Amino acid sequence: MAGSKKILALCGGVGGAKLALGLSHILDSDELTIVVNTGDDFDHLGLRICPDIDTVTYTLAGIVNPDTGWGRAEETGSFMASLSMLGGEDWFYLGDKDLALHVERTRRLGAGGSLSQVTTGIARALGVGPRILPMSDDPVATMVETTSGTLAFQHYFVRERCEPPVSGFYFDGIDSARAHPDLLALLADQTLDAVIICPSNPFVSIDPILSLPGVRQALSDCAAPVIAVSPIVGGKAVKGPTAKMMAELGLAPTSVEVLKRYQDIVDGFVLDQRDIDDLEQLKTMVTYVDVTDTLMLTLEHKIALARAILDFSVSCQ
Amino acid sequence: MAGSKKILALCGGVGGAKLALGLSHILDSDELTIVVNTGDDFDHLGLRICPDIDTVTYTLAGIVNPDTGWGRAEETGSFMASLSMLGGEDWFYLGDKDLALHVERTRRLGAGGSLSQVTTGIARALGVGPRILPMSDDPVATMVETTSGTLAFQHYFVRERCEPPVSGFYFDGIDSARAHPDLLALLADQTLDAVIICPSNPFVSIDPILSLPGVRQALSDCAAPVIAVSPIVGGKAVKGPTAKMMAELGLAPTSVEVLKRYQDIVDGFVLDQRDIDDLEQLKTMVTYVDVTDTLMLTLEHKIALARAILDFSVSCQ
Repeated sequence: MAGSKKILALCGGVGGAKLALGLSHILDSDELTIVVNTGDDFDHLGLRICPDIDTVTYTLAGIVNPDTGWGRAEETGSFMASLSMLGGEDWFYLGDKDLALHVERTRRLGAGGSLSQVTTGIARALGVGPRILPMSDDPVATMVETTSGTLAFQHYFVRERCEPPVSGFYFDGIDSARAHPDLLALLADQTLDAVIICPSNPFVSIDPILSLPGVRQALSDCAAPVIAVSPIVGGKAVKGPTAKMMAELGLAPTSVEVLKRYQDIVDGFVLDQRDIDDLEQLKTMVTYVDVTDTLMLTLEHKIALARAILDFSVSCQ
Repeated sequence: MAGSKKILALCGGVGGAKLALGLSHILDSDELTIVVNTGDDFDHLGLRICPDIDTVTYTLAGIVNPDTGWGRAEETGSFMASLSMLGGEDWFYLGDKDLALHVERTRRLGAGGSLSQVTTGIARALGVGPRILPMSDDPVATMVETTSGTLAFQHYFVRERCEPPVSGFYFDGIDSARAHPDLLALLADQTLDAVIICPSNPFVSIDPILSLPGVRQALSDCAAPVIAVSPIVGGKAVKGPTAKMMAELGLAPTSVEVLKRYQDIVDGFVLDQRDIDDLEQLKTMVTYVDVTDTLMLTLEHKIALARAILDFSVSCQ
């Protein structure tokens, strides 16, 4: 690939972060912008917590907990134990090291910094090269409609462990939220080489980004190829509630159903080789389809998948 | 001592907390109220931090760091190390366990709790019996006038390690702050048995309490004996900058100079046996004087001093 590249990745937490890490190993820092879902963000214990941004930041900084894919490696739990002792809300685990990020972010936001400025400052302090860009500087809150009522995302995801069957989602504040101007500028940039929709949860990781005013249209109008990577592997989600949500929504947990959500905006689709049975149907839905191993168990896998997707994106022109 | 007692102690941090602990071992929980200086309180990293309240709380809960007299025993420092890594403000040490208290307090205050309500809730969660009462629910900030300019107390005390020579103090917000109504009620209570001014720094621990509107007068009018315990031992402060401050203010570091600050309100004064040379002069200044060992190196010392003071207070009637 001659010359400088300009790649935009859209992602949520763990799965998307893995692909972003792979991309960061191939691309120069200034070639990659990672736009991250902020619909999971919430206020907790007086702190502003941004789970997806943090997962991407820790992953790219090389300090993510390798066992969970989120939080920090070699973490300690003194804070949480003491908080429990004080009768505080302890359903959302915050490690001692991780907590420093939330406290520092909350302080910086309180001092007037925008989420994107604060995110950049923290990423820089942790030595992250590529730009991690919140989808918006305005608050958006993913709400999960379940048979037990509507739950804020982290209450559904962490406190209720994704147990209540879901019937739908909405994004509180989305209508008045503005997509980050740099996201819209990148999508309108004629020198952009590709947009990659990472293998993240389509409902609660990618849809908030796509639902920001103007983003779906901008992706549709985008000169660069838009490539989506299926989060489904062998009819299941690698991690998280994607497949469970699809079943509860009356959708088959297949790449076909994932592509349906992106069909109006993507030029290419990447599915896992374990879902090869879907290939023929996918080919009727989108111009370019690539089959590969999307399971990113090792760093080598992540880099290999990132390379395969970048190569594929060139052929989607 | 027959019947129930009603004792009010006024104190700052480490030294006062030691005597409060001694008192708590002699008195029933409902017999002792400890009114604590809040002039040291400050906002830091978005958190409300109340150093003196916390020192008293941890001391009475039996979880204070025995080496420092403040902070928690068996503390870990992951948060602080990570905060430094993020380029955050790390001059004020916050251990991981300790941090839980600040986060939980900040959360409860943000939810509308008063400082006294929040302090009671936390103390109860930590198993503290006696009531720990902030001197006021309104913010008061001790400001230290130094040759390097005016510094907020913790900036002087921790960040500048008490190095700049002091020329005076003032308490920002003191004129509009209200002494906690329960403090004023106790001082007016005809069944109160004694008020004990703990061996705390007279300038920055006790004076903020005395400077609250109505408190000095209420102490003066108080039916119960008011006993002050000198923080000077052998012409020095046991801990902290009391003696250094006195020297910089042109005062001799003696019990006599301490008593001068309390002379209008106290009935009795307790000095350390190492300062016996001051005894004759002290006797000309106050009706009752007691000489004892005020150095509280062990729990037994703390209890013995507390008992000596309570016995002395009975003779001050």
